[in-house]
Amino acid sequence: MSKFEQLDAYLVEHQHAHLELLFELLRIPSVSADSSKKSEMGRAAAWVADQFRSAGLKTELIPGDGPALIYAETEPVEGQPVVLVYGHYDVQPADPLELWDTPPFEPALRDGNIYARGSTDDKGQMLTHVLSVLAWKNCGMKLPVQVKFLIEGQEEQGSEVLEAKLPELAKKLACDVIVISDSSQYAKGQPAITYGLRGIAYFELRVHGPKMDLHSGSFGGAVTNPGLALARILTEIKTPDGRIQLPGFYDNVVELEASERAMWDSMGFSDTKFAEALGVDALTGETGYSTLERRWARPTFDVHGLLGGYQGEGGKTVIPSWNGAKISFRLVPNQDPATVGRQLREFIASHTPPGVRVEVIDLHGGRGVVVDPNSKFMKGAVRAVEEGFGVQPVLIREGGSIPIVAQMVDALDCDVLLIGWGLDDDGAHSPNEKFCLNDFYRGIRSSSRLWEHLADRR
Amino acid sequence: MSKFEQLDAYLVEHQHAHLELLFELLRIPSVSADSSKKSEMGRAAAWVADQFRSAGLKTELIPGDGPALIYAETEPVEGQPVVLVYGHYDVQPADPLELWDTPPFEPALRDGNIYARGSTDDKGQMLTHVLSVLAWKNCGMKLPVQVKFLIEGQEEQGSEVLEAKLPELAKKLACDVIVISDSSQYAKGQPAITYGLRGIAYFELRVHGPKMDLHSGSFGGAVTNPGLALARILTEIKTPDGRIQLPGFYDNVVELEASERAMWDSMGFSDTKFAEALGVDALTGETGYSTLERRWARPTFDVHGLLGGYQGEGGKTVIPSWNGAKISFRLVPNQDPATVGRQLREFIASHTPPGVRVEVIDLHGGRGVVVDPNSKFMKGAVRAVEEGFGVQPVLIREGGSIPIVAQMVDALDCDVLLIGWGLDDDGAHSPNEKFCLNDFYRGIRSSSRLWEHLADRR
Repeated sequence: MSKFEQLDAYLVEHQHAHLELLFELLRIPSVSADSSKKSEMGRAAAWVADQFRSAGLKTELIPGDGPALIYAETEPVEGQPVVLVYGHYDVQPADPLELWDTPPFEPALRDGNIYARGSTDDKGQMLTHVLSVLAWKNCGMKLPVQVKFLIEGQEEQGSEVLEAKLPELAKKLACDVIVISDSSQYAKGQPAITYGLRGIAYFELRVHGPKMDLHSGSFGGAVTNPGLALARILTEIKTPDGRIQLPGFYDNVVELEASERAMWDSMGFSDTKFAEALGVDALTGETGYSTLERRWARPTFDVHGLLGGYQGEGGKTVIPSWNGAKISFRLVPNQDPATVGRQLREFIASHTPPGVRVEVIDLHGGRGVVVDPNSKFMKGAVRAVEEGFGVQPVLIREGGSIPIVAQMVDALDCDVLLIGWGLDDDGAHSPNEKFCLNDFYRGIRSSSRLWEHLADRR
Repeated sequence: MSKFEQLDAYLVEHQHAHLELLFELLRIPSVSADSSKKSEMGRAAAWVADQFRSAGLKTELIPGDGPALIYAETEPVEGQPVVLVYGHYDVQPADPLELWDTPPFEPALRDGNIYARGSTDDKGQMLTHVLSVLAWKNCGMKLPVQVKFLIEGQEEQGSEVLEAKLPELAKKLACDVIVISDSSQYAKGQPAITYGLRGIAYFELRVHGPKMDLHSGSFGGAVTNPGLALARILTEIKTPDGRIQLPGFYDNVVELEASERAMWDSMGFSDTKFAEALGVDALTGETGYSTLERRWARPTFDVHGLLGGYQGEGGKTVIPSWNGAKISFRLVPNQDPATVGRQLREFIASHTPPGVRVEVIDLHGGRGVVVDPNSKFMKGAVRAVEEGFGVQPVLIREGGSIPIVAQMVDALDCDVLLIGWGLDDDGAHSPNEKFCLNDFYRGIRSSSRLWEHLADRR
């Protein structure tokens, strides 16, 4: 029997045992947002560490100002890449509880899906890699690469512990490529590997006018209305054809490669179906780019909320003393959130109408990340996923931002592969979160091949 | 002794008695917004009616779906105008109580001012006309004109009873001119007569985008952001130089007379001091008009509040499914709020970006009003105020809207004189509301002359 035949046989034989293990972890309500669940967080961390220890991995719990990090590693393999698997054992809160068909922490199988909080995000996906390494170990085979694991317990709360410890952990975590399964396939039956994420620069604008609310009858027509001044500034930031007007905004933007555009064009994305699913009569955005290109690889500007003035029932006739907005720019490589902050302030300084003053408050920021879709790691991952799923994965980017990923890539100077085993409709942060049972098994199988295909075979 | 000498002597002699009467009325907490104060509303109405009856006026309480209206009239005077005095016996709520230096319903004299809720708005001002008619009566003199009184108890709550009853009361209230003292002098020591009010058309806009909030990472750049679409529409409604872009908006606008502009230019209004008082570094508005002209006699457009999306602490990365705004247009004669509503809808229909839908909700509207500043009534009023205050009043307009005034002027086809005895810093709707004691006396004296000077003397 070849290595793969051995592994496949082992995985089939252990399907029930693997599911039982996942159920054990899902039964621990490790809600990082809930301070009353501190001991459950500890139980979940200990459970994960136990899996590593049972397979003989060098394992440690790294304490911090929050949930512990779990670090584990297999033996180094001379001349071969080091792979770092990142995942998390914490989950989102489960409320509203009354919307769950079965209790969130009592995993249930229905229609081929595992229903439980954390099933897809991220306990089920993370475990695929743990179990595939255990499979190699239990089959008595030497892993072709060194696999390191960093499993944190604060991903749903902003990864502050990891962020704080990243500099001191950099040496321990040193690797050639990070593997993360904490996202979705492109579509049902169509796995994907994500090789890029957008960054973000998030701000609050506050436009200050008169020092107190004014009666709009007695004063209307004499002073600049802060709400209208805000509206004008927001309008001037982005043209109707989707171009952002901050000075120098596009200077460092890495343009799309022709090969990427061709690859995505061939994916059969339907604007019509997409618009229909969102309930809008038209898709809009930057001229000259397809919808996928605009979502995944072009910067944009959005308003998230509007603030200030009278917001109650009926009408109140005030000129508000201030109005504001929550806004963000989605960034692409190689834009820098701090630079965008400076560009925004510069733009506003030259676009503030007389009679008001604009305050720019930095809320948060993170760089985007993109790795070479033609790298050897990518080729290896594509092969592994194809063998696990029986379908060649598409190579995509993702419009959202995972600031900790960009920080790890920066700190460790490595590649990254985001291989999501989930589906868009898994309800990751919603009631009735699910994970397809077969995708759990296919994920373990893909992962078991991944270690082999990421190894150098020159 | 001449008639005026007799009246002046009577008024000086009765100063203390008049103040006592005002204190009696101020002690009744007739807060129309407070349903627990229903019996106090009844007491206040009865008290006012008693004053009229004590002077022998034909008096009636007109019940309605809310606080009663009080109607009273002196004898008709053949060949002379009929004057209708409008006022109100209800007051604003007094909270926050802890900010009052003395209790709101225990009137107190300090620094030459009467401190109490309702002192300036409107019990003190309204009573000047009641007491001046009583003075004529008590001096045994026949009033030179017929004076009718309509005193309502719901002005602070929108005058719904009066509005509903106006058609059936039109015959009873028939008059040549309405006199209202429920506003302010132009400045301390400078009385004013207001001969125009702006109207208003108030709306809520709701811009609807995707059918649910979307993750701005995954979807940003693909759909029209409702907050940005709203911002663009608001921005396009008014140019930076203050011109409103609704089609036909200025068609019916009555332009300022050269004489009005000259009159107001001569009033020594200081843009610098005004801007300083409001805490703004510049005054802005429609090009080609002075600040007073823009506030009193030009239409304008304001945002009162912004709605929708994430408004909490920090950042949330959503594309809101909707955003909205409370907006209004201040109108001048002869603009019609319903017409402006149609113009707004027409404008929005042609300015809605693709990918969103805009809902326009009518909130409230009222026409502006302006009467001839050179009318014989105005001349008589100027003379009366000058004799009462020792200073010639300036003729002004007011930027605010009193929809019931425009409705009465329309329904009764008459002139209107708004003669405010108050001051801008009286705190009409605030804690420590006050009314200058001497202005109370000067108001009664002016009113006592008014009946004579409004009479025809051909």
